[in-house]
Amino acid sequence: MVSRTELANAIRFLSMDAVEKAKSGHPGAPMGMADIAEVLWRDHLKHNPANPAWADRDRFVLSNGHGSMLIYSLLHLSGYDLSIDDLKNFRQLHSKTPGHPEYGYAPGVETTTGPLGQGISNAVGMALAEKMLAAEFNRDGHAIVDHYTWVFLGDGCLMEGVSHEACSLAGTWGLGKLIAFWDDNGISIDGDVEGWFTDDTPARFEAYGWQVIRNVDGHDPVEIETAIQTAKKETARPTLICCKTTIGFGAPNKQGGHDVHGAPLGAAEIAAAREHLKWPHAPFEIPADVYAAWGARDKGAAVESDWARRFDAYRAAYPELAAEFERRMKGELPANWEETKTAAIGKIVEAGQTVATRKASQIALEAFSPALPEFLGGSADLTGSNLTNWSGSKWIDAEGHGNYISYGVREFGMAAIMNGVALHGGLRPYGGTFLMFSEYARNALRMAALMKINPIYVFTHDSIGLGEDGPTHQPVEQTATLRYIPNMDVWRPCDTAEAAVAWAHAIEQRTRPSSLILSRQNLPFVSRETPQLADIAKGGYVLRDADGARAVLIATGSEVELALKAQAALAEEGVPVRVVSMPSTNVFDRQDKAYQQAVLPKGLPRVAIEAGVSDFWRKYVGLDGEVVGIDSFGESAPAGALFEHFGFTVDNVVAKTRSVLQ
Amino acid sequence: MVSRTELANAIRFLSMDAVEKAKSGHPGAPMGMADIAEVLWRDHLKHNPANPAWADRDRFVLSNGHGSMLIYSLLHLSGYDLSIDDLKNFRQLHSKTPGHPEYGYAPGVETTTGPLGQGISNAVGMALAEKMLAAEFNRDGHAIVDHYTWVFLGDGCLMEGVSHEACSLAGTWGLGKLIAFWDDNGISIDGDVEGWFTDDTPARFEAYGWQVIRNVDGHDPVEIETAIQTAKKETARPTLICCKTTIGFGAPNKQGGHDVHGAPLGAAEIAAAREHLKWPHAPFEIPADVYAAWGARDKGAAVESDWARRFDAYRAAYPELAAEFERRMKGELPANWEETKTAAIGKIVEAGQTVATRKASQIALEAFSPALPEFLGGSADLTGSNLTNWSGSKWIDAEGHGNYISYGVREFGMAAIMNGVALHGGLRPYGGTFLMFSEYARNALRMAALMKINPIYVFTHDSIGLGEDGPTHQPVEQTATLRYIPNMDVWRPCDTAEAAVAWAHAIEQRTRPSSLILSRQNLPFVSRETPQLADIAKGGYVLRDADGARAVLIATGSEVELALKAQAALAEEGVPVRVVSMPSTNVFDRQDKAYQQAVLPKGLPRVAIEAGVSDFWRKYVGLDGEVVGIDSFGESAPAGALFEHFGFTVDNVVAKTRSVLQ
Repeated sequence: MVSRTELANAIRFLSMDAVEKAKSGHPGAPMGMADIAEVLWRDHLKHNPANPAWADRDRFVLSNGHGSMLIYSLLHLSGYDLSIDDLKNFRQLHSKTPGHPEYGYAPGVETTTGPLGQGISNAVGMALAEKMLAAEFNRDGHAIVDHYTWVFLGDGCLMEGVSHEACSLAGTWGLGKLIAFWDDNGISIDGDVEGWFTDDTPARFEAYGWQVIRNVDGHDPVEIETAIQTAKKETARPTLICCKTTIGFGAPNKQGGHDVHGAPLGAAEIAAAREHLKWPHAPFEIPADVYAAWGARDKGAAVESDWARRFDAYRAAYPELAAEFERRMKGELPANWEETKTAAIGKIVEAGQTVATRKASQIALEAFSPALPEFLGGSADLTGSNLTNWSGSKWIDAEGHGNYISYGVREFGMAAIMNGVALHGGLRPYGGTFLMFSEYARNALRMAALMKINPIYVFTHDSIGLGEDGPTHQPVEQTATLRYIPNMDVWRPCDTAEAAVAWAHAIEQRTRPSSLILSRQNLPFVSRETPQLADIAKGGYVLRDADGARAVLIATGSEVELALKAQAALAEEGVPVRVVSMPSTNVFDRQDKAYQQAVLPKGLPRVAIEAGVSDFWRKYVGLDGEVVGIDSFGESAPAGALFEHFGFTVDNVVAKTRSVLQ
Repeated sequence: MVSRTELANAIRFLSMDAVEKAKSGHPGAPMGMADIAEVLWRDHLKHNPANPAWADRDRFVLSNGHGSMLIYSLLHLSGYDLSIDDLKNFRQLHSKTPGHPEYGYAPGVETTTGPLGQGISNAVGMALAEKMLAAEFNRDGHAIVDHYTWVFLGDGCLMEGVSHEACSLAGTWGLGKLIAFWDDNGISIDGDVEGWFTDDTPARFEAYGWQVIRNVDGHDPVEIETAIQTAKKETARPTLICCKTTIGFGAPNKQGGHDVHGAPLGAAEIAAAREHLKWPHAPFEIPADVYAAWGARDKGAAVESDWARRFDAYRAAYPELAAEFERRMKGELPANWEETKTAAIGKIVEAGQTVATRKASQIALEAFSPALPEFLGGSADLTGSNLTNWSGSKWIDAEGHGNYISYGVREFGMAAIMNGVALHGGLRPYGGTFLMFSEYARNALRMAALMKINPIYVFTHDSIGLGEDGPTHQPVEQTATLRYIPNMDVWRPCDTAEAAVAWAHAIEQRTRPSSLILSRQNLPFVSRETPQLADIAKGGYVLRDADGARAVLIATGSEVELALKAQAALAEEGVPVRVVSMPSTNVFDRQDKAYQQAVLPKGLPRVAIEAGVSDFWRKYVGLDGEVVGIDSFGESAPAGALFEHFGFTVDNVVAKTRSVLQ
């Protein structure tokens, strides 16, 4: 019989050899955590390698994503569609095995990790989704949602602030099926962590309300097994299993030091490891009995088919719930979505309210949410300011019932948890904070865009228009910088109609996140013809044309009103100009050239108006156009005084427009 | 005699009345923390209202910056140059009393706060600076650096992840003179915190190695006094004093609820508070005996002049140290700076090394650092990758000796701590991480720019050029988005010469931070004439001209080499083009129009080449130019394969250039 150590060594050598072949990578963590992984994956992880999309599989997150060869080895050995050639292609262009595990590449990778602290936070979101879906869908005798979320994490994840935010919430929410293994190897890139990481980590996690299992020998399968049993017994608290490990375990001369963390070991050391661990096999050669012991396809097929049988019974008893569960896990919109949308937008246009766009967003939420039970709303302690709640919002309770979360003042944690919820499936997360504090969360927004998932961010208080709170809270560059994140749709609507369309567009996206940029202050409703209303969804459109227009004013959000007033003033002076509303530059940029040129005809001078950095707009106005923007920090004062102070006046727009006329 | 409660009530009514007059603001925290503030400011805080720049003053940080009327009230009552009219102008344009406390506005405001969690982190930096300067400058019998750093913070600061990063380091560093008061009022904006903030905060801080004083009644001056005494007695650990308070204390109908947090109380409630607290005085009227009891100018003058006498004795004993201390606290460069700089750059140019610009940065550090003992270097656990150390780097020891810090994997904490160090004075912080993880720290970088302070960020691994680590680590939009932060200088040098000039320019800035964007991969040295070398400091310059140039190629960093190769290829085809190197667009944009147009002549078509988002470059190339950029996420592969894949080839640049020729 193959020993457990030998099975773990298969991971070690695949990792060493793949890193060596790629001439880059991180062998230390896979070698250090191989024994833990062996016990977890072979004896506990509920999964079916043949169907990585099975709804009730356990989720496994490698939060220390640089140790990617660990998960690639596990997926390969367990029987996922990841061949030995895929492992040989580690870190090569268009391979399934990029340097860090990326969602959508290798099957079985549940989230993209690498930016530290976010994997554990995604896992908190996955465990939250499991708990909430179980509360919503399970019925007596029908536990169709019932899986664990397992996390591997290192010292780096624990040092990152986002781990504080997410793990604190995991404790508050009592996520009993979240079980994390801390790779306590005492080493980070700068060396022995004792100079910069002296937390009493177990005490810290107990302070969050976690069960903590201390002093587990991460190379002893029996201790690991016992710890997992203890973790599973606790159902009301998440568990942290603290595993003492040796980084690079098995490399006789390098293990335990930081040289083994992030560089190939070198041929000599790998040869020494083969000797030391008694692994005579050539690189990428795994003995048949090792494959046999690792293979999880049979067991996986059995557990999934058992679940499928139970799901059939559930379907028989609760056909509507079952159908709804299946729709939600597929991420499909409800059948009546188009009607709901059309009716809701029609009603909103008819009402023609003059409100802040944050309120317009809430009105849209109120209209759309009843049709979208998958919505999981929330805010980073700014519900009353972001207006992210609606009349049907129910705050999450101890059992996981509800559809709304107060995340506390934790923007990054919120966003990373939302990513985890979206990745789990079954729930559609949206969450709010002030636009300024999108910066705290920024890398999680980027990760959503990179992973092609679709959370929705509600960013209110979008410019100097927030007034007295001053420059610390007044976005200047934030809208532009969000637009620069590849695959992110940014919307800055000017009224209730654009806000509703922006929400609908965001809801319909399956492969990209959306950021809604909303005003604190009231903005007037703008009347439109029906074709114009349809064109909002194109991201930019002619809002008010003029015969013989001599220039185009392009504006977004709160500055659309100013553009319209300037248009009127210019008309009085005999200068006809067109006003283009551009709620989403990202979406406008995806339209065909013909449409773009119809909106912004070549040769017509252009003036852009937005209370943000002006340079962004050069892509539309060119070198010869003008921009009414803000290139300094804001000030603390009432909003009206600020718009005046920063030149957002009809006179200034008129003057700038005159200056570009040919 | 005026009672302590009455003195605290002066804060309460100034806060209520100023918020009421401004029609916006946050009365809850000032009213809740008034009693703590009264004990601290009247009996412990070492300061001189007549000289807010006194080097050895205690630092006071209001980390819950929304409670700004608390510090404005304290500054006014203590006798700082902040008049009652200034308080009446709370939150008005160009007042000294903006909505959040802003560094450089009201004297005595030590840092700009509002973005939660950063104030406490700044304070950690201040206490670190105090400890390190004491270690460096104090001598037996001459404790010229010997002050406390006091912090007020709320639940919001404790929920933010950056508080985890900074407070963990404060424990590791044993900052015994850092004393924080937690305003434990149980309320945040979404309501009672128990639904989202259930940490055992005392246990959490003990896990960081702090002394924690539990269960202090924040409205009982005796308990507060006792706690402060206990805090001061502990010299090896920072202290957290947990104060139970009632938010909005004194507003009889609203106190203890979240309505009192962030909105004016209204005339009726303020009238009721006047009744309830027996405060018959009109708004902004403070009785003379209250002023008398608060006034700290006499005491302040005495403590400062005592220190000045002791400093004279120190000067007599250690004249060079004293002069150095004064220079450093003024933030002036050493007298020999110009010579050092010229010699160092000359030597670097002469060596003409082909290295990665991260290595070029280290070479510059090696050349400049011996002249700059104020340098406090560091990295967020990437020293060997960022190359932020040099031969004279000494890691901080338990006593605070040293000039280098491994911050651990804590980018945001590092940046916020660096801000605190810079604000304290006496040390000049620089710190490194991967450019991607500037995103984790982003709002602290913005705060440095807003405060007009001058930390230096070393951001390495600057593009797809980092290769195999893949898109999670490959910056695409980061350089552009950093350039959009007002008052931030971003440099992306192309070789050792530009790297040295960038460092020198960054070092010379007194009112702005600088970000150095550096490559992982080697970049060839480019030879230059002497005037060209001088022009690097202008941010953009003609690197290689051509007679009768028909286009301008603009490039930065690693793409300058490609531009030069394309220039050669085009020359062979009979198309002369100019190559402009643009290491800092921010600095180039500050040059006069004549210089800018000399570099980029009007009418000459332009092609920009940068491995980042292309839209940014429209400000230089206009609608008719071309950009060789990247508008999608990167990929995991060797760098050479990636540059090819993304079109960074001579052929592509030549083709794009041909397409813009007129």
